Formats: sequence, structure tokens, C-alpha cells
Amino acid sequence: MTEYPVSRWLAGQVEDIEDWVAEEVPVALEYNGLSYAVMMCSPQDLEDFARGFSLSECIVEDADEIYDIQISSQEDGIQLAITIPQSRFWALKSHRRSLAGRTGCGLCGKESLAQLAHSLDPFPTGGQPIAASAIENACNQLKSQQHLFSHTGSVHAAAWSDTDGNIVAIREDVGRHNALDKLIGNNLNSGLNLNQGMLIMTSRASYEIVQKAAACSISVIAAVSGPTGLAVRLAQDLGVTLVGFARDSRLSVYAHPERIV
Amino acid sequence: MTEYPVSRWLAGQVEDIEDWVAEEVPVALEYNGLSYAVMMCSPQDLEDFARGFSLSECIVEDADEIYDIQISSQEDGIQLAITIPQSRFWALKSHRRSLAGRTGCGLCGKESLAQLAHSLDPFPTGGQPIAASAIENACNQLKSQQHLFSHTGSVHAAAWSDTDGNIVAIREDVGRHNALDKLIGNNLNSGLNLNQGMLIMTSRASYEIVQKAAACSISVIAAVSGPTGLAVRLAQDLGVTLVGFARDSRLSVYAHPERIV
Repeated sequence: MTEYPVSRWLAGQVEDIEDWVAEEVPVALEYNGLSYAVMMCSPQDLEDFARGFSLSECIVEDADEIYDIQISSQEDGIQLAITIPQSRFWALKSHRRSLAGRTGCGLCGKESLAQLAHSLDPFPTGGQPIAASAIENACNQLKSQQHLFSHTGSVHAAAWSDTDGNIVAIREDVGRHNALDKLIGNNLNSGLNLNQGMLIMTSRASYEIVQKAAACSISVIAAVSGPTGLAVRLAQDLGVTLVGFARDSRLSVYAHPERIV
Repeated sequence: MTEYPVSRWLAGQVEDIEDWVAEEVPVALEYNGLSYAVMMCSPQDLEDFARGFSLSECIVEDADEIYDIQISSQEDGIQLAITIPQSRFWALKSHRRSLAGRTGCGLCGKESLAQLAHSLDPFPTGGQPIAASAIENACNQLKSQQHLFSHTGSVHAAAWSDTDGNIVAIREDVGRHNALDKLIGNNLNSGLNLNQGMLIMTSRASYEIVQKAAACSISVIAAVSGPTGLAVRLAQDLGVTLVGFARDSRLSVYAHPERIV
């Protein structure tokens, strides 16, 4: 966060104040010395981000394959230098895309429609049941834990809740998919099982959220805002339970409602 | 929009209903036969989108340089084939990036931090004054004109207001920068002067919004949510008036407040 001078108008009156603004910093990801992507991020929890991004983008298959993460400040942004096994690096180079994104962007660098196909295996149906009241419970706890949002009013959060609706981890970012990557990275590092519990997003559920979650074995996603049609179809295909508009004591289940009880 | 079956939970009761969901479709932009970018878009107003994107990304300098736009449905998305002058096409090829984006992504394909520098000239200070009450007026009219949002609850809008606060055009999209590109394309087509009036965004003001607006000579931006620090600095540098949190009879001016009276 940075404090800026602001002219605030209220009912025709103006006052000069200082206001906290969320930062947005170019973060370059580099694997084994090769530039891979630049994302616009909130500059917190970048080690979590590097770990989560590497897994949710299927660059590695397991957190153990991330050998090292070095964070360094550059003149025009922050560099994350990640070391992965040579076999993963070769795979990365062979289907390397020029990936980059602004704050709202999940996955980039695709030049033609044919490159957008998914290649994830669907989840088995069934698995953990979640009570609708647990989702409501988790959503009610969100606000008090969104610290960056409470100061700036302009960042998303991704939170991890246990099956009873208790929030056990939260990460914030100007980009919703970055918040999710940071949460995934945190969960991997703290040994939280991504099969047990649910993901709560303060944003809408667009398709890259479903794709990243599914890539990390998350089977239940609840978003405070609505889903897109593509997100619904992807969740249906991949066996992910997708809940939207989880707020004000209600929720709508758009895919795989059998897990909600 | 697409209608999906939904299980809606409210106060412990569940009912099965049909609900409208905003669509999100891969849209491929092609210039003179060369694939340039894939963006996730709402599939409306795509001719406006092609026109606005070409201008806000500085691919052409003037709407007259867009000779032709052909829209065609493909198996896995929609293709926009745009014809531009050979001189612009050569420039595009020489600094071509692999551009692509999901719904939230404005500009992509940059692999290293050095590629993120801006090269726009700043606006002259001064210019049109705008009354704070006109911004309030425009924001109050927004909701009733967000038709896609009223059905789906999950799209952004970019609106154009005259200096008195009357909304004269509005475009909606799952991506905020796409909504802006569509609005720019519409304004160019309807002969609306981008120097006279202001841009209203229902989203936060991130830096690609400021950059796209500045590239199209828009000097006043009012966002319903907050700005990021990078957006504030870019607006300061480029001479753009940046207003945030324009809602509930208040607003905060983060850059060039001299235009707000």
C-alpha cells in the first residue's frame, strides 16, 4: 500500500486528505534462468505466489519440484527466479508461451483459438460433502480478514475454509487469479490439504479460476459474485462444484450440486 | 447470456431454478491475416471492440486506418479479421508481442520487465472542467443502463458521459478493459469526441485502463471502485484526471484534481 494525497468531495464539499492505495507491481517469473511471464501483482506473499503459480499452471506437478525461489527487486519491478527440475524445464520450453498479464489476467500468451483447449482430468464424482451453512459461515468471516481490502477497497481475496466453514488461510491481490495462486502456494507450504475444504473467492468465478483450482485438486469453489458461462461448463466437465453469489445468506450452485448438503 | 439450471439455497431451503449467466468467449484478433491476440470477451459489440482495441493499443493512430473488420464464428471462439494499412502492419510485426488475455487482462505477452515502459505523450494541463456533481449524476444513472449486469450480476461497464453528467453511451463486458475498448470503438463510430466528456468505469481503475484511455485522448476517468498505485502514478505522469470511489454522493480525486470544480 502507498499513501497518496487525495481531494475528497462529499456533498459538494472538498477536503484534502491522505488515502491508502493498493500497489500493483510488475512481477517477472523466470524458470531456470528463462523469462516466462510478467504479471501485475500486489507485492506481498510473492514466495507463495511463485509456488502456487508453478503448480496451478502445471509447470510442476508437485511442490517438491520447486527447488528454490529467489526474490529480487529490479529497477522496474520484482523478479522471481524459480528453480525446477531439468525435465520440467524442458517440457516448459517445448510448449512455452509468451505469458504475461495485467492484474485481472490469469493466463496469457495464446495467439490462436486452438491453443485454448484444456487437458485436465475430471475429478471423480462424490468426495467431501459441504453444508450450505458452512459456505455461508465462511463468507460471513471474509470481511474481517481482508486487511488490504479494508485499507484500500480495491483488492480481491482468495480464502481457504475447512469443511465446517472456518477460514484457515487468506491471501489478497489486485488480481483475483494471483490471490488464488498465493493461497495455493501458502496451502502447499503449510501442509493444508487442497482436497479437504473449499476455496472462497471474493470475485466472480471466471474460467481461469476453475482451471487453476482444478489443476490443484480443489473440488469446491464458492464465489461471492457470479460465474461466467465458460466457467460453469468447465466446472461441469472437470467435476468441480461451482457456487456463485455466496452472500447475504443465499448461494447458487451452478455445477455439481451433489456435494452441497 | 446463457440460461443454466441452478440449485439456489436461501435460509437453508433449496430450490431448482434457471439463471442467466454472462458468456465469456475466446475472441481472436487477426491483423492483415496475422494472428495477434486472443482475449476472453462477452460476445456483444465485437465490431466496436475491434475498433477500440486497435486504437487503444496504438496499432492504428486513427479510426480511418481501420479499413475492414470481418467477424466470423469458429468452432472454438470468434475471429475478428481486421485490415489496416501496410505501414501499420509492418510496425506491428516489428514489435509484435504474443498478446492474449483472459477476461480481466488488458495487455499481455510481455516477457520481461523492460517491455512494460510507456511511450505516450502527456496531456496538456487544463482543458475541460467537470463539476463533481456531474460525475455524481452520471454514476447515479449507471445502474439503470447496465442491462447485461442486471441479468447476470457479473460484468463490468464502461460508460461515456457528457460534461453535464448525462450518459450518452455504455458498453458491457466480462473484462473491464474490453468494456472500455468497446466504448472507445462505439464513440469513434458515432462521432463522439473523446476530448469532450468523461469515462465512467464500474470497476477499479488499474493501470491499463489509464493507459488505454490516455492513448485515446480521454482526460477524465471516474471509477466506481478504487485505483491502484501504478494507475495513480501513470495518470499523474500523463496528465489524466483520475477519480476513484465515485459512488454514494462522494468521490476521491487521485490525480490532476484541477479539472474537477
